[in-house]
Amino acid sequence: MSIVQSILNGDRLALARILTQVENNTPEGKSALAELFPYTGKAHLIGVTGAPGTGKSSLVNKLVLHYRKNENKRVAIIAVDPSSPFTGGAVLGDRVRMKDLSGDTGAFIRSMASRGSIGGLARSTAGMVEVFDAAGYDIVIVETVGAGQSEVDIARLAHTTLVVEAPGLGDDIQAIKAGILEIADILVVNKADRPGVENTEKALRSMLELAHPTARVFKHHGAYMSVAVPVQENTAMWIPPIQRTISTDAKGIEELAGLIAKHAEHLRVSGDWVSRERARLSSEMEALLRDELMNQFRSRMPEAEFNQVMERVFTRELSPWEAVKLLVKESIK
Amino acid sequence: MSIVQSILNGDRLALARILTQVENNTPEGKSALAELFPYTGKAHLIGVTGAPGTGKSSLVNKLVLHYRKNENKRVAIIAVDPSSPFTGGAVLGDRVRMKDLSGDTGAFIRSMASRGSIGGLARSTAGMVEVFDAAGYDIVIVETVGAGQSEVDIARLAHTTLVVEAPGLGDDIQAIKAGILEIADILVVNKADRPGVENTEKALRSMLELAHPTARVFKHHGAYMSVAVPVQENTAMWIPPIQRTISTDAKGIEELAGLIAKHAEHLRVSGDWVSRERARLSSEMEALLRDELMNQFRSRMPEAEFNQVMERVFTRELSPWEAVKLLVKESIK
Repeated sequence: MSIVQSILNGDRLALARILTQVENNTPEGKSALAELFPYTGKAHLIGVTGAPGTGKSSLVNKLVLHYRKNENKRVAIIAVDPSSPFTGGAVLGDRVRMKDLSGDTGAFIRSMASRGSIGGLARSTAGMVEVFDAAGYDIVIVETVGAGQSEVDIARLAHTTLVVEAPGLGDDIQAIKAGILEIADILVVNKADRPGVENTEKALRSMLELAHPTARVFKHHGAYMSVAVPVQENTAMWIPPIQRTISTDAKGIEELAGLIAKHAEHLRVSGDWVSRERARLSSEMEALLRDELMNQFRSRMPEAEFNQVMERVFTRELSPWEAVKLLVKESIK
Repeated sequence: MSIVQSILNGDRLALARILTQVENNTPEGKSALAELFPYTGKAHLIGVTGAPGTGKSSLVNKLVLHYRKNENKRVAIIAVDPSSPFTGGAVLGDRVRMKDLSGDTGAFIRSMASRGSIGGLARSTAGMVEVFDAAGYDIVIVETVGAGQSEVDIARLAHTTLVVEAPGLGDDIQAIKAGILEIADILVVNKADRPGVENTEKALRSMLELAHPTARVFKHHGAYMSVAVPVQENTAMWIPPIQRTISTDAKGIEELAGLIAKHAEHLRVSGDWVSRERARLSSEMEALLRDELMNQFRSRMPEAEFNQVMERVFTRELSPWEAVKLLVKESIK
């Protein structure tokens, strides 16, 4: 039996192996992705992002426990840590995360740290999401540590994006929050037993009013794929609700799961589910296309010739832009 | 007189105009960059990064005041905010930053927010650095808000990277810190009058020992440019020093400027200055090359044909990877 068939049959070892191949972008990983792709398109992809200190991981754990115990859904978690490109290991160890879910074959947790480039990370994440989707996981949660642009890019893979906040974080973090707020489908105020929860919620509400003056329109930010299909605007309107949670006590988790389900329904009814799928696939295509064009260039361009041109840039004889035009012209010859 | 000549002559309005063109990646911006490039290579590029809440901006302001008043150096600041891709305005307004430096023609501050893609942001920043360099600024400071991968990428432009910490930040932020620590040439513990400063410094020291077991080797992380020149390892060793500062009182600023100068000297003596320049130019070249290859592809590929292939991906008939191979093959025909 092929490894792809094993994955479709629910073999966890085969799944783990292919996830590694996809993460490392190996030929085996690529061909498995191609074989698995026709089986994708069923999972509900949930992105979870937010500033450090909001208790995202603990919230995600509780949400997964809810899906397992009360809804009998199979859930995969991809915990992405774009902020530690050098240490080579994710800040959240798989083992720590697994405690509550150990022995449960309906849940799968995978941590991932950046390996040099954000582009690479977003691509691996997209691939891993597709593997889990094909393997029959009903829900795939992509959780990012941090709140920068890279996290936003990764969250953009999702059908439903949760932005997690907590009372009592500093002003700097508040400021950063404003940026990621606009990608939120659902706002979660975690650690809601802390003092200041009313203020946090009030601040979020006024920010929301700024961010959503009229309707919620999904924007596709694939900057280069100008030829991609335009994303439809919704006809119906989704105003991101705010949900309080206390993840340590599992409070508000059921309500949160309810809002997530409601959002999925909204996406289906409004046609946004399809739009988001298309935007996601367009982004993925663009990233792959850029890589492949670079590969093709490399295979056509002799290293010595390339280095010669680089040398002229280093000595400031040619500007980088002139050098690129020269190289591309040469490679087409 | 051409606008490029005006910039070389110190015209601030011409400079501001070209910075906008470079930020927006217009043809005028590109051609100005090409013309200005031969005049670059003199400025000392300083990257300043660190978690939110550490008081980076205030520290940078004080450092600039020091350079202006005591060393008579011309200084440019590029304040990059990768975390607010949607609001379109940088969190740190130029106006707020300018207060201390208003009327000083030897200082120039420019804020920049992300516009959709990190790649784009890193490229604009690289271009703006070159404009300031050519315009005769002795020091160009690139300050990033946040501490994610994108900030690390931007900091990587620099000859000297400062990582700013502060006592009393949460555990999550500590964890994130571990990742960016390895790019630090100088560690700054700002807000050093706060309780816990000894602990922060102790934690940094032990992290440093982990990060620099032997010598400090500069790594070039341009992931795709495998044909680029290899970066030389230093022969001499630079152990990142830790400097306490209280930026509100301008304490420790002079010492910090001293360490920065010492690091520049170290780079010159060890040959790392040249290595870092080359690594920086290689990364810039790679980004431009990828864009140009994509542009070439787009000009060769009829939109209708592209959309037809995308449609087959949307219906899951073709995987993204198969689609890309098909498109590239067609475009070469």
